Amino acid sequence: MERAVILVSGGLDSAVTLAIALQQGYEVHALSFCYGQRHAIELEAARRVVQSQHVHEHRIAEIDLRVFGGSALTDDIPVPQNGPAGEKTADEIPVTYVPARNTIFLSYALAWAEVIPARHIFLGVNVVDYSDYPDCRPEFLEAFEKLAALGTKAGVEGVATKIHAPLLRLSKAEIIRKGTALGVDFGLTHSCYAPADDGTACGRCDSCGLRLKGFAEAGLRDPIRYAQQ
Amino acid sequence: MERAVILVSGGLDSAVTLAIALQQGYEVHALSFCYGQRHAIELEAARRVVQSQHVHEHRIAEIDLRVFGGSALTDDIPVPQNGPAGEKTADEIPVTYVPARNTIFLSYALAWAEVIPARHIFLGVNVVDYSDYPDCRPEFLEAFEKLAALGTKAGVEGVATKIHAPLLRLSKAEIIRKGTALGVDFGLTHSCYAPADDGTACGRCDSCGLRLKGFAEAGLRDPIRYAQQ
Repeated sequence: MERAVILVSGGLDSAVTLAIALQQGYEVHALSFCYGQRHAIELEAARRVVQSQHVHEHRIAEIDLRVFGGSALTDDIPVPQNGPAGEKTADEIPVTYVPARNTIFLSYALAWAEVIPARHIFLGVNVVDYSDYPDCRPEFLEAFEKLAALGTKAGVEGVATKIHAPLLRLSKAEIIRKGTALGVDFGLTHSCYAPADDGTACGRCDSCGLRLKGFAEAGLRDPIRYAQQ
Repeated sequence: MERAVILVSGGLDSAVTLAIALQQGYEVHALSFCYGQRHAIELEAARRVVQSQHVHEHRIAEIDLRVFGGSALTDDIPVPQNGPAGEKTADEIPVTYVPARNTIFLSYALAWAEVIPARHIFLGVNVVDYSDYPDCRPEFLEAFEKLAALGTKAGVEGVATKIHAPLLRLSKAEIIRKGTALGVDFGLTHSCYAPADDGTACGRCDSCGLRLKGFAEAGLRDPIRYAQQ
Protein backbone atom coordinates (compact mmCIF):
# COMPACT_ATOMS: atom_id res chain seq x y z
CA MET A 1 0.00 0.00 0.00
CA GLU A 2 1.54 3.30 -1.10
CA ARG A 3 1.63 6.01 1.54
CA ALA A 4 0.66 9.62 0.89
CA VAL A 5 0.78 12.83 2.89
CA ILE A 6 -2.40 14.89 2.41
CA LEU A 7 -2.72 18.53 3.40
CA VAL A 8 -6.07 18.93 5.15
CA SER A 9 -7.31 22.43 5.96
CA GLY A 10 -10.84 21.62 6.98
CA GLY A 11 -12.13 23.22 3.80
CA LEU A 12 -14.26 21.68 1.10
CA ASP A 13 -11.41 21.20 -1.38
CA SER A 14 -9.09 19.32 0.95
CA ALA A 15 -11.96 17.08 2.13
CA VAL A 16 -12.56 16.03 -1.48
CA THR A 17 -8.80 15.64 -2.10
CA LEU A 18 -8.61 13.33 0.92
CA ALA A 19 -11.50 11.23 -0.39
CA ILE A 20 -9.81 10.97 -3.80
CA ALA A 21 -6.51 9.80 -2.26
CA LEU A 22 -8.39 7.14 -0.27
CA GLN A 23 -10.32 6.04 -3.35
CA GLN A 24 -7.00 5.69 -5.21
CA GLY A 25 -5.86 3.28 -2.49
CA TYR A 26 -3.29 5.32 -0.60
CA GLU A 27 -2.52 4.91 3.08
CA VAL A 28 -3.35 8.47 4.11
CA HIS A 29 -1.20 10.52 6.49
CA ALA A 30 -3.11 13.75 7.02
CA LEU A 31 -1.31 16.98 7.86
CA SER A 32 -2.91 20.18 9.13
CA PHE A 33 -1.42 23.42 10.34
CA CYS A 34 -2.12 25.60 13.30
CA TYR A 35 -0.68 28.76 11.81
CA GLY A 36 -1.99 31.66 13.78
CA GLN A 37 -5.00 31.84 11.53
CA ARG A 38 -7.83 33.87 12.96
CA HIS A 39 -10.21 30.96 12.78
CA ALA A 40 -9.22 27.95 14.89
CA ILE A 41 -12.62 26.80 13.62
CA GLU A 42 -10.74 25.61 10.52
CA LEU A 43 -8.69 23.17 12.57
CA GLU A 44 -11.80 21.79 14.23
CA ALA A 45 -13.21 21.18 10.76
CA ALA A 46 -9.96 19.48 9.73
CA ARG A 47 -10.26 17.13 12.71
CA ARG A 48 -13.88 16.33 11.88
CA VAL A 49 -13.09 15.68 8.21
CA VAL A 50 -10.18 13.38 9.09
CA GLN A 51 -12.23 11.47 11.69
CA SER A 52 -15.01 10.90 9.15
CA GLN A 53 -12.70 9.07 6.72
CA HIS A 54 -10.27 6.14 6.93
CA VAL A 55 -7.11 8.05 7.65
CA HIS A 56 -4.00 6.26 8.96
CA GLU A 57 -2.86 9.20 11.11
CA HIS A 58 -3.35 12.94 11.49
CA ARG A 59 -0.70 15.36 12.66
CA ILE A 60 -1.04 19.05 13.32
CA ALA A 61 2.08 21.16 12.93
CA GLU A 62 2.11 24.39 14.88
CA ILE A 63 3.71 27.13 12.85
CA ASP A 64 3.63 30.84 13.40
CA LEU A 65 3.11 32.81 10.22
CA ARG A 66 2.01 35.85 12.24
CA VAL A 67 5.68 36.50 12.97
CA PHE A 68 5.82 38.05 9.49
CA GLY A 69 2.29 39.38 9.06
CA GLY A 70 1.21 40.48 5.62
CA SER A 71 -2.21 38.89 5.01
CA ALA A 72 -5.84 39.32 5.97
CA LEU A 73 -5.86 35.68 7.14
CA THR A 74 -3.09 36.12 9.70
CA ASP A 75 -3.16 39.87 10.39
CA ASP A 76 -5.76 42.44 11.31
CA ILE A 77 -6.39 43.49 7.72
CA PRO A 78 -10.18 43.36 7.15
CA VAL A 79 -11.39 40.43 5.05
CA PRO A 80 -13.10 41.73 1.90
CA GLN A 81 -16.87 41.25 1.78
CA ASN A 82 -17.72 41.05 -1.87
CA GLY A 83 -21.16 39.64 -1.50
CA PRO A 84 -22.62 36.23 -2.19
CA ALA A 85 -21.59 35.94 -5.81
CA GLY A 86 -17.94 35.74 -4.80
CA GLU A 87 -16.75 37.90 -7.67
CA LYS A 88 -13.24 39.17 -7.45
CA THR A 89 -13.01 42.93 -7.28
CA ALA A 90 -10.02 43.20 -9.59
CA ASP A 91 -7.59 41.07 -11.53
CA GLU A 92 -5.03 41.10 -8.76
CA ILE A 93 -3.71 38.93 -5.97
CA PRO A 94 -6.27 39.03 -3.14
CA VAL A 95 -5.47 40.42 0.31
CA THR A 96 -6.31 37.00 1.74
CA TYR A 97 -3.22 35.59 0.02
CA VAL A 98 -0.75 34.45 2.72
CA PRO A 99 2.85 35.02 1.60
CA ALA A 100 4.55 31.80 0.49
CA ARG A 101 1.93 29.76 2.37
CA ASN A 102 1.78 26.80 0.03
CA THR A 103 5.57 26.81 -0.21
CA ILE A 104 5.75 26.50 3.58
CA PHE A 105 2.96 23.91 3.76
CA LEU A 106 4.51 21.78 1.03
CA SER A 107 7.91 22.01 2.73
CA TYR A 108 6.42 20.54 5.89
CA ALA A 109 4.63 17.86 3.87
CA LEU A 110 7.94 17.05 2.21
CA ALA A 111 9.73 16.78 5.56
CA TRP A 112 7.08 14.39 6.85
CA ALA A 113 7.02 12.43 3.59
CA GLU A 114 10.75 11.91 3.96
CA VAL A 115 10.35 10.57 7.48
CA ILE A 116 7.36 8.23 6.87
CA PRO A 117 8.61 7.58 4.06
CA ALA A 118 5.98 8.52 1.50
CA ARG A 119 6.50 9.33 -2.18
CA HIS A 120 3.21 11.14 -2.67
CA ILE A 121 1.84 14.46 -1.46
CA PHE A 122 -1.75 15.52 -2.15
CA LEU A 123 -3.14 19.02 -1.84
CA GLY A 124 -6.41 20.61 -2.83
CA VAL A 125 -5.20 23.60 -4.81
CA ASN A 126 -7.21 24.81 -7.72
CA VAL A 127 -6.47 27.20 -10.56
CA VAL A 128 -10.05 27.83 -11.59
CA ASP A 129 -11.25 29.65 -8.48
CA TYR A 130 -7.85 30.68 -7.17
CA SER A 131 -6.05 31.72 -10.31
CA ASP A 132 -4.85 34.85 -8.52
CA TYR A 133 -2.89 32.95 -5.90
CA PRO A 134 0.55 32.42 -7.43
CA ASP A 135 1.26 29.33 -5.33
CA CYS A 136 -1.82 27.50 -6.63
CA ARG A 137 -0.59 27.34 -10.23
CA PRO A 138 0.58 24.14 -11.97
CA GLU A 139 4.00 25.64 -12.78
CA PHE A 140 4.50 26.23 -9.08
CA LEU A 141 3.69 22.60 -8.24
CA GLU A 142 6.09 21.37 -10.94
CA ALA A 143 8.83 23.62 -9.55
CA PHE A 144 8.19 22.15 -6.10
CA GLU A 145 8.57 18.60 -7.44
CA LYS A 146 11.94 19.59 -8.88
CA LEU A 147 12.98 21.14 -5.59
CA ALA A 148 11.94 17.96 -3.75
CA ALA A 149 14.00 15.83 -6.12
CA LEU A 150 17.09 17.93 -5.41
CA GLY A 151 16.63 18.81 -1.77
CA THR A 152 15.80 15.53 -0.06
CA LYS A 153 17.59 12.32 0.84
CA ALA A 154 14.94 10.36 -1.06
CA GLY A 155 15.39 12.56 -4.14
CA VAL A 156 19.16 12.08 -4.11
CA GLU A 157 18.59 8.34 -3.92
CA GLY A 158 16.42 8.58 -7.03
CA VAL A 159 13.01 8.40 -5.36
CA ALA A 160 10.86 11.17 -6.78
CA THR A 161 8.19 12.80 -4.62
CA LYS A 162 5.05 13.31 -6.65
CA ILE A 163 2.79 16.29 -5.93
CA HIS A 164 -0.85 15.41 -6.65
CA ALA A 165 -3.38 18.19 -7.11
CA PRO A 166 -6.43 16.30 -8.36
CA LEU A 167 -8.72 19.36 -8.17
CA LEU A 168 -6.34 21.62 -10.06
CA ARG A 169 -8.51 22.20 -13.11
CA LEU A 170 -11.98 21.49 -11.70
CA SER A 171 -14.63 24.13 -11.09
CA LYS A 172 -16.11 24.40 -7.59
CA ALA A 173 -19.29 22.74 -8.87
CA GLU A 174 -17.27 19.82 -10.27
CA ILE A 175 -15.39 19.47 -6.98
CA ILE A 176 -18.68 19.38 -5.07
CA ARG A 177 -20.15 16.77 -7.42
CA LYS A 178 -17.03 14.62 -7.14
CA GLY A 179 -17.04 14.87 -3.34
CA THR A 180 -20.73 13.99 -3.22
CA ALA A 181 -20.08 10.91 -5.38
CA LEU A 182 -17.30 9.87 -2.98
CA GLY A 183 -19.53 10.31 0.07
CA VAL A 184 -17.86 13.41 1.51
CA ASP A 185 -19.95 14.99 4.26
CA PHE A 186 -19.71 18.68 3.39
CA GLY A 187 -21.51 19.51 6.61
CA LEU A 188 -18.19 18.82 8.39
CA THR A 189 -16.20 21.28 6.30
CA HIS A 190 -15.57 24.98 6.84
CA SER A 191 -14.77 27.60 4.21
CA CYS A 192 -15.68 31.03 5.60
CA TYR A 193 -12.95 33.66 6.00
CA ALA A 194 -14.93 35.56 8.63
CA PRO A 195 -17.11 33.16 10.65
CA ALA A 196 -19.10 33.98 13.79
CA ASP A 197 -17.74 32.71 17.11
CA ASP A 198 -19.92 29.60 16.90
CA GLY A 199 -18.49 28.82 13.44
CA THR A 200 -21.51 29.98 11.43
CA ALA A 201 -20.34 31.07 7.97
CA CYS A 202 -20.84 34.73 7.08
CA GLY A 203 -22.21 34.03 3.60
CA ARG A 204 -20.62 37.21 2.25
CA CYS A 205 -16.83 36.74 2.02
CA ASP A 206 -15.09 35.56 -1.17
CA SER A 207 -14.80 32.03 0.14
CA CYS A 208 -18.48 31.72 1.12
CA GLY A 209 -19.40 33.26 -2.22
CA LEU A 210 -17.42 30.71 -4.20
CA ARG A 211 -18.79 27.86 -2.14
CA LEU A 212 -22.43 28.91 -2.45
CA LYS A 213 -22.03 29.50 -6.18
CA GLY A 214 -20.47 26.04 -6.52
CA PHE A 215 -23.35 24.32 -4.72
CA ALA A 216 -25.87 26.29 -6.78
CA GLU A 217 -24.16 25.29 -10.04
CA ALA A 218 -23.94 21.68 -8.92
CA GLY A 219 -27.66 21.74 -8.17
CA LEU A 220 -27.00 20.68 -4.58
CA ARG A 221 -27.78 22.13 -1.18
CA ASP A 222 -24.89 23.24 1.05
CA PRO A 223 -25.52 21.56 4.43
CA ILE A 224 -23.68 24.17 6.54
CA ARG A 225 -25.36 27.14 8.23
CA TYR A 226 -24.94 30.70 6.99
CA ALA A 227 -25.62 33.97 8.81
CA GLN A 228 -26.98 35.32 5.52
CA GLN A 229 -26.99 34.24 1.90
CA MET B 1 19.50 50.51 0.39
CA GLU B 2 18.56 47.00 -0.71
CA ARG B 3 16.98 44.80 1.95
CA ALA B 4 17.97 41.20 2.55
CA VAL B 5 16.68 38.39 4.75
CA ILE B 6 19.55 36.44 6.33
CA LEU B 7 19.13 33.05 7.99
CA VAL B 8 21.11 33.15 11.24
CA SER B 9 21.59 29.91 13.18
CA GLY B 10 24.17 31.06 15.69
CA GLY B 11 26.81 28.97 13.94
CA LEU B 12 30.07 30.12 12.49
CA ASP B 13 28.91 30.00 8.86
CA SER B 14 25.82 32.15 9.29
CA ALA B 15 27.80 34.71 11.35
CA VAL B 16 30.20 35.12 8.42
CA THR B 17 27.31 35.22 5.92
CA LEU B 18 25.72 38.02 7.95
CA ALA B 19 28.99 39.99 7.95
CA ILE B 20 29.28 39.54 4.17
CA ALA B 21 25.73 40.81 3.57
CA LEU B 22 26.46 43.87 5.72
CA GLN B 23 29.75 44.48 3.91
CA GLN B 24 27.86 44.33 0.60
CA GLY B 25 25.62 47.14 1.87
CA TYR B 26 22.34 45.34 2.53
CA GLU B 27 19.83 46.37 5.17
CA VAL B 28 19.82 43.10 7.09
CA HIS B 29 16.66 41.41 8.38
CA ALA B 30 17.88 38.42 10.39
CA LEU B 31 15.74 35.33 10.76
CA SER B 32 16.31 32.49 13.21
CA PHE B 33 14.25 29.44 14.06
CA CYS B 34 13.23 27.87 17.30
CA TYR B 35 12.60 24.42 15.87
CA GLY B 36 12.61 22.00 18.75
CA GLN B 37 16.32 21.53 18.40
CA ARG B 38 17.94 19.94 21.40
CA HIS B 39 20.19 22.90 21.94
CA ALA B 40 18.44 26.18 22.65
CA ILE B 41 22.05 27.26 23.11
CA GLU B 42 22.08 27.78 19.32
CA LEU B 43 19.39 30.44 19.57
CA GLU B 44 21.29 32.26 22.30
CA ALA B 45 24.30 32.30 20.00
CA ALA B 46 22.11 33.62 17.16
CA ARG B 47 20.96 36.48 19.41
CA ARG B 48 24.56 37.31 20.41
CA VAL B 49 25.75 37.22 16.79
CA VAL B 50 22.93 39.51 15.63
CA GLN B 51 23.46 41.95 18.52
CA SER B 52 27.17 42.19 17.68
CA GLN B 53 26.52 43.42 14.14
CA HIS B 54 24.48 46.22 12.56
CA VAL B 55 21.29 44.33 11.90
CA HIS B 56 18.04 46.17 11.11
CA GLU B 57 15.82 43.64 12.88
CA HIS B 58 15.84 40.05 14.13
CA ARG B 59 12.86 37.74 14.21
CA ILE B 60 12.63 34.26 15.60
CA ALA B 61 10.04 31.96 14.06
CA GLU B 62 8.86 29.13 16.28
CA ILE B 63 8.38 26.00 14.26
CA ASP B 64 7.99 22.45 15.41
CA LEU B 65 9.95 19.98 13.35
CA ARG B 66 9.72 17.41 16.14
CA VAL B 67 6.16 16.72 15.02
CA PHE B 68 7.73 14.56 12.28
CA GLY B 69 10.92 13.35 13.97
CA GLY B 70 13.55 11.70 11.84
CA SER B 71 16.87 13.34 12.75
CA ALA B 72 19.49 13.27 15.49
CA LEU B 73 19.08 17.04 15.82
CA THR B 74 15.38 16.94 16.66
CA ASP B 75 14.90 13.37 17.95
CA ASP B 76 16.54 11.14 20.50
CA ILE B 77 18.85 9.49 17.98
CA PRO B 78 22.42 9.72 19.41
CA VAL B 79 24.66 12.27 17.71
CA PRO B 80 27.66 10.49 16.16
CA GLN B 81 30.98 11.11 17.90
CA ASN B 82 33.57 10.67 15.22
CA GLY B 83 36.47 12.29 17.01
CA PRO B 84 38.22 15.59 16.60
CA ALA B 85 39.17 15.28 12.95
CA GLY B 86 35.55 15.44 11.90
CA GLU B 87 35.90 12.77 9.25
CA LYS B 88 32.71 11.39 7.88
CA THR B 89 32.25 7.71 8.58
CA ALA B 90 30.79 6.86 5.19
CA ASP B 91 29.77 8.47 1.94
CA GLU B 92 26.17 8.82 2.98
CA ILE B 93 23.72 11.40 4.27
CA PRO B 94 24.48 11.93 7.97
CA VAL B 95 21.98 11.14 10.73
CA THR B 96 22.16 14.81 11.76
CA TYR B 97 20.42 15.74 8.48
CA VAL B 98 16.99 17.22 9.29
CA PRO B 99 14.43 16.27 6.61
CA ALA B 100 13.71 19.15 4.25
CA ARG B 101 15.11 21.62 6.78
CA ASN B 102 16.57 24.11 4.37
CA THR B 103 13.42 23.88 2.24
CA ILE B 104 11.36 24.85 5.28
CA PHE B 105 13.80 27.57 6.39
CA LEU B 106 13.96 29.09 2.91
CA SER B 107 10.16 29.00 2.66
CA TYR B 108 9.90 31.10 5.81
CA ALA B 109 12.61 33.45 4.54
CA LEU B 110 10.64 33.78 1.32
CA ALA B 111 7.43 34.56 3.19
CA TRP B 112 9.16 37.28 5.19
CA ALA B 113 10.98 38.62 2.12
CA GLU B 114 7.60 39.00 0.45
CA VAL B 115 6.22 40.99 3.38
CA ILE B 116 9.22 43.32 3.96
CA PRO B 117 9.60 43.40 0.83
CA ALA B 118 13.13 42.13 0.16
CA ARG B 119 14.51 40.64 -3.04
CA HIS B 120 17.50 38.93 -1.47
CA ILE B 121 17.88 35.96 0.85
CA PHE B 122 21.27 34.97 2.28
CA LEU B 123 22.13 31.65 3.88
CA GLY B 124 25.39 30.09 4.98
CA VAL B 125 25.19 26.73 3.24
CA ASN B 126 28.35 25.12 2.04
CA VAL B 127 29.02 22.21 -0.31
CA VAL B 128 32.62 21.58 0.77
CA ASP B 129 32.00 20.41 4.32
CA TYR B 130 28.34 19.46 3.90
CA SER B 131 28.32 17.79 0.51
CA ASP B 132 26.23 14.97 1.97
CA TYR B 133 23.30 17.23 2.85
CA PRO B 134 21.13 17.31 -0.28
CA ASP B 135 19.63 20.68 0.57
CA CYS B 136 23.02 22.39 0.72
CA ARG B 137 23.79 21.86 -2.98
CA PRO B 138 23.83 24.62 -5.61
CA GLU B 139 21.23 22.82 -7.76
CA PHE B 140 18.88 22.90 -4.78
CA LEU B 141 19.34 26.65 -4.34
CA GLU B 142 18.71 27.25 -8.05
CA ALA B 143 15.53 25.15 -7.85
CA PHE B 144 14.39 27.25 -4.90
CA GLU B 145 14.94 30.48 -6.85
CA LYS B 146 12.72 29.08 -9.61
CA LEU B 147 10.08 28.11 -7.07
CA ALA B 148 10.19 31.62 -5.57
CA ALA B 149 9.72 33.17 -8.99
CA LEU B 150 6.60 31.09 -9.59
CA GLY B 151 5.09 30.92 -6.11
CA THR B 152 5.11 34.48 -4.87
CA LYS B 153 3.28 37.68 -5.61
CA ALA B 154 6.62 39.42 -6.21
CA GLY B 155 7.70 36.68 -8.62
CA VAL B 156 4.47 36.96 -10.61
CA GLU B 157 5.04 40.70 -10.83
CA GLY B 158 8.47 40.00 -12.33
CA VAL B 159 10.56 40.66 -9.21
CA ALA B 160 13.00 37.78 -8.81
CA THR B 161 14.12 36.70 -5.34
CA LYS B 162 17.84 35.98 -5.36
CA ILE B 163 19.26 33.30 -3.06
CA HIS B 164 22.79 34.22 -1.98
CA ALA B 165 25.06 31.53 -0.59
CA PRO B 166 28.42 33.33 -0.43
CA LEU B 167 30.14 30.46 1.44
CA LEU B 168 28.93 27.78 -0.95
CA ARG B 169 32.33 26.76 -2.30
CA LEU B 170 34.64 27.90 0.51
CA SER B 171 36.49 25.55 2.84
CA LYS B 172 35.94 25.97 6.59
CA ALA B 173 39.42 27.53 6.83
CA GLU B 174 38.56 30.05 4.10
CA ILE B 175 35.27 30.89 5.85
CA ILE B 176 37.12 31.49 9.12
CA ARG B 177 39.74 33.70 7.42
CA LYS B 178 37.00 35.71 5.67
CA GLY B 179 35.08 36.14 8.93
CA THR B 180 38.22 37.22 10.74
CA ALA B 181 38.92 39.81 8.03
CA LEU B 182 35.36 41.14 8.46
CA GLY B 183 35.71 41.36 12.24
CA VAL B 184 33.38 38.49 13.16
CA ASP B 185 33.70 37.53 16.82
CA PHE B 186 33.75 33.73 16.62
CA GLY B 187 33.62 33.60 20.41
CA LEU B 188 29.89 34.42 20.10
CA THR B 189 29.11 31.54 17.77
CA HIS B 190 28.12 27.97 18.56
CA SER B 191 28.64 24.87 16.42
CA CYS B 192 28.54 21.80 18.67
CA TYR B 193 25.85 19.16 18.09
CA ALA B 194 26.15 17.84 21.66
CA PRO B 195 27.09 20.70 24.02
CA ALA B 196 27.18 20.55 27.84
CA ASP B 197 24.37 22.34 29.71
CA ASP B 198 26.52 25.47 30.07
CA GLY B 199 27.10 25.53 26.31
CA THR B 200 30.64 24.16 26.36
CA ALA B 201 31.34 22.43 23.04
CA CYS B 202 32.05 18.69 23.21
CA GLY B 203 35.01 18.82 20.84
CA ARG B 204 34.17 15.36 19.48
CA CYS B 205 31.06 15.61 17.29
CA ASP B 206 31.27 16.11 13.51
CA SER B 207 30.51 19.79 13.82
CA CYS B 208 33.20 20.45 16.46
CA GLY B 209 35.63 18.39 14.39
CA LEU B 210 35.05 20.43 11.24
CA ARG B 211 35.30 23.67 13.17
CA LEU B 212 38.55 22.77 14.94
CA LYS B 213 40.08 21.49 11.71
CA GLY B 214 39.07 24.77 10.01
CA PHE B 215 40.71 26.92 12.67
CA ALA B 216 43.84 24.74 12.57
CA GLU B 217 44.09 25.03 8.78
CA ALA B 218 43.49 28.79 8.96
CA GLY B 219 46.32 29.05 11.49
CA LEU B 220 43.97 30.71 13.99
CA ARG B 221 42.83 29.93 17.50
CA ASP B 222 39.16 29.09 18.12
CA PRO B 223 38.07 31.39 20.98
CA ILE B 224 35.26 29.11 22.28
CA ARG B 225 35.71 26.58 25.09
CA TYR B 226 35.81 22.83 24.48
CA ALA B 227 35.31 19.99 26.95
CA GLN B 228 38.08 18.14 25.11
CA GLN B 229 40.00 18.54 21.89
